[in-house]
Amino acid sequence: MVTLLDLIGTFAFAMSGALTAMNKKLDPFGILIIAFVTSIGGGTIRDIMIGRTPVGWMRDLNYLYAINLGYVMALIFKQKLLRLRISLLLTDTIGLGVFTLIGIQKGLDYGIHPFICVALGTITACFGGILRDVLCAEIPVVFRKEIYATICILGGIVFFVLQSMAFNENVVYLATSLVIIVIRLLAVKFDWSFPTFEPKS
Amino acid sequence: MVTLLDLIGTFAFAMSGALTAMNKKLDPFGILIIAFVTSIGGGTIRDIMIGRTPVGWMRDLNYLYAINLGYVMALIFKQKLLRLRISLLLTDTIGLGVFTLIGIQKGLDYGIHPFICVALGTITACFGGILRDVLCAEIPVVFRKEIYATICILGGIVFFVLQSMAFNENVVYLATSLVIIVIRLLAVKFDWSFPTFEPKS
Amino acid sequence: MVTLLDLIGTFAFAMSGALTAMNKKLDPFGILIIAFVTSIGGGTIRDIMIGRTPVGWMRDLNYLYAINLGYVMALIFKQKLLRLRISLLLTDTIGLGVFTLIGIQKGLDYGIHPFICVALGTITACFGGILRDVLCAEIPVVFRKEIYATICILGGIVFFVLQSMAFNENVVYLATSLVIIVIRLLAVKFDWSFPTFEPKS
Repeated sequence: MVTLLDLIGTFAFAMSGALTAMNKKLDPFGILIIAFVTSIGGGTIRDIMIGRTPVGWMRDLNYLYAINLGYVMALIFKQKLLRLRISLLLTDTIGLGVFTLIGIQKGLDYGIHPFICVALGTITACFGGILRDVLCAEIPVVFRKEIYATICILGGIVFFVLQSMAFNENVVYLATSLVIIVIRLLAVKFDWSFPTFEPKS
Repeated sequence: MVTLLDLIGTFAFAMSGALTAMNKKLDPFGILIIAFVTSIGGGTIRDIMIGRTPVGWMRDLNYLYAINLGYVMALIFKQKLLRLRISLLLTDTIGLGVFTLIGIQKGLDYGIHPFICVALGTITACFGGILRDVLCAEIPVVFRKEIYATICILGGIVFFVLQSMAFNENVVYLATSLVIIVIRLLAVKFDWSFPTFEPKS
Repeated sequence: MVTLLDLIGTFAFAMSGALTAMNKKLDPFGILIIAFVTSIGGGTIRDIMIGRTPVGWMRDLNYLYAINLGYVMALIFKQKLLRLRISLLLTDTIGLGVFTLIGIQKGLDYGIHPFICVALGTITACFGGILRDVLCAEIPVVFRKEIYATICILGGIVFFVLQSMAFNENVVYLATSLVIIVIRLLAVKFDWSFPTFEPKS
């Protein structure tokens, strides 16, 4: 089930990457690379840091298919997708929840301390988008708006609290994903964000 | 022979990196780093993703020498090289062909699926230049102009088609490189490029 | 003792990263990520290139604590720290010396050639700051001002000259760090820098 969710997240992130890149006057290939990097960037950074090589998307062609599907869908349904912001937000949020979870789990598989696993979950979920923004020569949106990454950290804490209470693995997974997804949607709906530091002082 | 071509590609990419950096008001050390990253960036990303560590340029000092030679040549012959755009284009194109080939071959050596190997060849050939542009705070040129990366993918397909026809390894190598080099030169000559997406809609 | 110095360097780099990020209108989480990347970025790139995984900061929670301490200190004492530029410069310079040394030593531990080890020391000391600037969408300061990286290379040469003279390890460490720290402070005091290349010709 995790693999299926992972593929859905990959697809969703590829689509959101492609849509972002289209606003940047890139050519079709540039858009494909951005879609690619957005969807597998976070997991790739996680894998090379924990020593899981060849990295994940090289082991299973389904990731490549999911990315290309997301890319083609973005090209075809561009106009509709931009209007249907809500569907994009939903898929992106599923990706956020799933990728955080998978990042934490991969860390645990490699015997890494829970604190670091929370960082790995956050990296998995956020660094695809950070790379996307860096390649578009922008300050990453996650640093300026939305409490995106804070939600991943919260989700990580929920994960380990539930796990320490000896809940069943599937319950832990489901609850963690749901917490991340619900808080994200609430955050977008009510426009929660942190104040930014003003460079005056 | 592959190693020799690899060193020529490294030298060519270092020179093109240094020439780009000189247009950015960097100091001599900044230029050296950009030359370095342009020439070994793509191969380094490939190596860390497939788990080939220490990465290639750490195993053979000749890469270091090739980079420094390209850097020094760029500093000395700057004025002439900028006028001799044709020679730069040629070396850069040789690098493109050779790096694509080497990326594919390294992937095969690590038992990776041919589809992913094509991606690895493209990464090897293109990500040095992408890193160069990111370090110069620009949107990578490969995303906006030229059909650079598309040529790498075409070259990859040629590689596997010829290989499946049981041609001799050297024939496959030579034909793949030539296809990439010839298409690139034609693309530059006739100014082939993809239309970019306009952010109006 | 190296570990203690490493933690001091990590703390200092986290603080300098956070202070830089605060000038960029980032939210508190963005600042934390920048602090994180500035302090562990160089060592992480070194580790993944030599194949030392899981990378250093995942093996010892003290790095996480040092980063968070540096981050919190930057948030609390922001106004004072910006006035006390000299204390920031000092900690940053200690980080520079220590990180160069550690990078060289890690390379030697992995049987890598001294020339490459000097590059590894420079990468360890400089790439955290380079990543910081890239994430802030700026051309890295190390490419434009200050002879930061040149000092690392000089320090590396001192390291191997002393080592080849069969000095005691601690003497080599101490002398290398001191050379880097003293030259850096002199460079800042007397405003030493390389001329940049002008893009006119």
